[in-house]
Amino acid sequence: MRISQLAETTGVPVATIKYYLREGLLPEGERTSATQARYGDNHVRRLRLVRALLGAGGLSVAGARAVLGQLDGEHETVAEVLGVAQSAVTTTAPEGVDLSRAEALVAGWGWTIDPGSADVLAALEVAVDGLEAAGFELPDGTLDGYARSMAEVAEAEIAGIPVDSVDAAVQYVVLGTVLVEPLLLALRRLAQQDASWRRFGP
Amino acid sequence: MRISQLAETTGVPVATIKYYLREGLLPEGERTSATQARYGDNHVRRLRLVRALLGAGGLSVAGARAVLGQLDGEHETVAEVLGVAQSAVTTTAPEGVDLSRAEALVAGWGWTIDPGSADVLAALEVAVDGLEAAGFELPDGTLDGYARSMAEVAEAEIAGIPVDSVDAAVQYVVLGTVLVEPLLLALRRLAQQDASWRRFGP
Repeated sequence: MRISQLAETTGVPVATIKYYLREGLLPEGERTSATQARYGDNHVRRLRLVRALLGAGGLSVAGARAVLGQLDGEHETVAEVLGVAQSAVTTTAPEGVDLSRAEALVAGWGWTIDPGSADVLAALEVAVDGLEAAGFELPDGTLDGYARSMAEVAEAEIAGIPVDSVDAAVQYVVLGTVLVEPLLLALRRLAQQDASWRRFGP
Repeated sequence: MRISQLAETTGVPVATIKYYLREGLLPEGERTSATQARYGDNHVRRLRLVRALLGAGGLSVAGARAVLGQLDGEHETVAEVLGVAQSAVTTTAPEGVDLSRAEALVAGWGWTIDPGSADVLAALEVAVDGLEAAGFELPDGTLDGYARSMAEVAEAEIAGIPVDSVDAAVQYVVLGTVLVEPLLLALRRLAQQDASWRRFGP
């Protein structure tokens, strides 16, 4: 199909499609003349994915490019796929963050962590430091409770990884990491409203 | 203290403090001459809070200003405090989002939601639509499992709200909403690594 038909099929304006092409989020079509190219169903699927990453996923163009690069790359093991998916969406740790508190917490919960995941540990450290810096003290046991709930979430997610195809596993892990985060945060806010209503009444 | 001492005490450069003053994130000091002002402990505390919101909280200057406005405002009930805290950090829903799926999900879980919280419902709708648009199908029961885990998190959080002081409740709810989100996301990623290690081995 031509670019105008691709736009019609997906509801994405031609100018936006051209922008994604320039930014490398969408592969070039098959050139049919100096000014025209032909696009296929793979472009329709990729375009929907790009919209999801930039929209619901809340990624920047650079972030989406990194995630798509992971989807297109070659991968061996589930741990490797998980590692690259997580690093594509985790902010690089500022230099010199002391990870000792995050490491102690994780060890206390008995979790085994990918040794190459300093950025994810740093995200925990920064979050905990941020609470402290703001003078916000979590009630006793709250952090352990959060860890338990997230372990529950993660357990189910890892159990759901398709094991018959590396491609399907990559798709599942990358999108599950990026697109499920806003879902969890929205659910938490709604659940807070319900819990507040039940506790404090109408 | 002078602005130079405020900078020394908090480790925030004078130029940054001046920027926060201009942006209304920090109240003016008490003017002692045409070019000098005096700052107090309340400025030290507020400055730490601003750093936490912009840093660990990941808020924009406009977002931080909205949250601080809520902290400074007057509030009556816990539900009201929760509502303003959530709306300060929830992206305004795009016009014309059909909320019927989000409403059906929430009703299915038996949750009671603040009728004024269309933006939070829209966040759920956008997240679910985003998964679908990306061609990512959650395994059966996964969404219900997410809802259960988040209900557990929310239940403990609401139970921990200080009820003896509205100010303390506002601080708890606003900071708990903003600063705990990155904490939960970091915990989920680390828990996924552990679950993956236990399931797929070293």
